[in-house]
Amino acid sequence: MKLLRVGTKGAERPALLDAEGTLRDLSGVVPDIDGALLADDAALAWVRAAAAELPVLDATGLRTGPPLARIGKIVCIGLNYHDHARETGGAVPAEPILFMKAPDTVVGPDDTVLVPRGSVKTDWEVELAVVIGRTARWLETDEEALAAVAGYAVAHDVSEREFQIERGGQWDKGKNCETFNPLGPWLVTSEEVPDPQALALRLWVNGELRQDGSTSEQIFPVAEVVRYVSRFMTLYPGDVINTGTPAGVAMGQPDPKPYLRAGDVVELEIDGLGRQRQMLRDA
Amino acid sequence: MKLLRVGTKGAERPALLDAEGTLRDLSGVVPDIDGALLADDAALAWVRAAAAELPVLDATGLRTGPPLARIGKIVCIGLNYHDHARETGGAVPAEPILFMKAPDTVVGPDDTVLVPRGSVKTDWEVELAVVIGRTARWLETDEEALAAVAGYAVAHDVSEREFQIERGGQWDKGKNCETFNPLGPWLVTSEEVPDPQALALRLWVNGELRQDGSTSEQIFPVAEVVRYVSRFMTLYPGDVINTGTPAGVAMGQPDPKPYLRAGDVVELEIDGLGRQRQMLRDA
Repeated sequence: MKLLRVGTKGAERPALLDAEGTLRDLSGVVPDIDGALLADDAALAWVRAAAAELPVLDATGLRTGPPLARIGKIVCIGLNYHDHARETGGAVPAEPILFMKAPDTVVGPDDTVLVPRGSVKTDWEVELAVVIGRTARWLETDEEALAAVAGYAVAHDVSEREFQIERGGQWDKGKNCETFNPLGPWLVTSEEVPDPQALALRLWVNGELRQDGSTSEQIFPVAEVVRYVSRFMTLYPGDVINTGTPAGVAMGQPDPKPYLRAGDVVELEIDGLGRQRQMLRDA
Repeated sequence: MKLLRVGTKGAERPALLDAEGTLRDLSGVVPDIDGALLADDAALAWVRAAAAELPVLDATGLRTGPPLARIGKIVCIGLNYHDHARETGGAVPAEPILFMKAPDTVVGPDDTVLVPRGSVKTDWEVELAVVIGRTARWLETDEEALAAVAGYAVAHDVSEREFQIERGGQWDKGKNCETFNPLGPWLVTSEEVPDPQALALRLWVNGELRQDGSTSEQIFPVAEVVRYVSRFMTLYPGDVINTGTPAGVAMGQPDPKPYLRAGDVVELEIDGLGRQRQMLRDA
C-alpha cells in the first residue's frame, strides 16, 4: 500500500495511491498518516480493504507533502555502505554510527531545498528511510526488528560538510538546516517491500547520475539497524531511521567538488518507493 | 510567571504557580503549555493578568510532568563550562559543540530515570534549559537572541558515557536512552530571569553534593548559544536548548567513578527554577 499526504504545506490530507495508480482520498476515513495510524492494524486493514471504493482525488497541480505527520525523531546511520565508507576515507565502522535530524527538517519530496547562508559544501545523500510502526526496545531477532517496521520511503539526507565536520564537534551541526530532509513521495507499507536489501537507489544532479547503489551494499542491513538502535533508544510508531547513503556524494569527488548551489536540481529514486525532485535555492 | 503541567503521564493539565506559591488551574483558559502558547503574547498576557482569579488546584499527591508539551527538538551544547571542559580533559571548544536529544526522552522532574540495559556508565548533568518562544533564523544580536527565549527550566541531561564515547561515532548514542531528559518542574518565563548568566546550579547524588556551579562559568552564554544555533538550524517555539553542565559529573571523578545505579537518588536545582528528584531503577 502506498500512503501519501497531498495539499499545501501544513494542510496536507491523507491519501492513497491504489494498485492502478489512482490517487484516492483518505481524509474521510483516517485523521492523518502518522504513528497512531501505523500502530493500528485494524485501521490499516480497513483502509487496504476499502481502497477501491474511496473517493478519487484529482492529482493535477496537487503538491505532495511528506508522507508522515508528527514524526517523533529521525535517527540516521552514518557510513553504512561499503562504497560510501571508502569514498569518504572513513574506516568501515565496527558498529553503526548514529546521529540525528530534527523532524522539522522534513519537507515534501519535490519541495525547494535551501542552501544555508554561508554554506559552500551542501551535499546530497539518497537514503532508504525506515518508518517505525511498533514500539521497540532491546529487540533481539531480525524477525522482531522487521515486525517493528511499518514501511519504507525515499529520504534525502541533505548535509553541509563544513558544518558537519569542520566546525568542532558532532555531525548534527551539518544535518539539521531547514529543508534538509525531503521525504516521500510515498510511505510504502512493508508487505510491498519483501526484501529491503535488494533495492536500487539512484540520484542525479542536473541530470547527471551521481549515486547508483543498492541496499545490498549496506554494512548493517535494515533488520540489524533497527535491532541496534533499539538498544540505545526506544523507537516509537512514527519514528524514522535514515539508513545511510551509497557512494557518489560530492564530498567523495575530486576537487573542485561539485557541491550544490542555488539553481541546481536534484532527482532521486529508490525502486518501488518513488521519485523526488528538488530545486535548490539560497536561504 | 511559573508555568507547569500536572497530572498523570500523558494526561497532564496546564497550571500556574502564582506569586504566593498557590497552584492554579490553567486548563479552562489554555489548551496546553506548548510552542503555540509561548508564541502568543496576547494569551500569555491574559494568563498573567488573570492569575489571581484562576481556580486553585490541590497539589496534594499530584505528579508534576514536564512543563512543556509537543517539544519540537532538543539541541544540546557540549563542554560549555570552563570547569567541566577541564574535568573531561576536553579542550575549550572554539565554537559551540551541538548534539541532540529526542523529545521522547523528556519526563517529569521527579519521574523515575532508567539505567539502560547493559549500562555501567550512566552519568548525571544538571543544565539550564532555554525554551524558545519565537522562530529564530540567523540572529545577529544578543538582544534578538534573548527576545527569542520564552523562558528557562531545569534539565537533567542524563548521559551514558560508554554509549556516548566508546561505541564508535557520535555522542547522540549515549544521550537518547528512555527517560534521559527530566525537565521542570517549571517553565519560568524570561521576565523572572533577568540575568541567565548569574544562576547557581547544584546536583546531589544520594545526598552528596556533586555539582555546584554557576552559569557565569559558561564558555558560550545563553544569548551567544541561541544566536549560534540559529545559524545552523531554525529554532521554533517549543524547541529547547540544554546549555551544558558545570564540573562534577561522575566521568570527571577518580576511579572507581561513581556512575549511577538502580536505587540511587539524584536531586538537582537551579536558583529560581525549582528542584528535581529522581530515583534510578534498571530498565
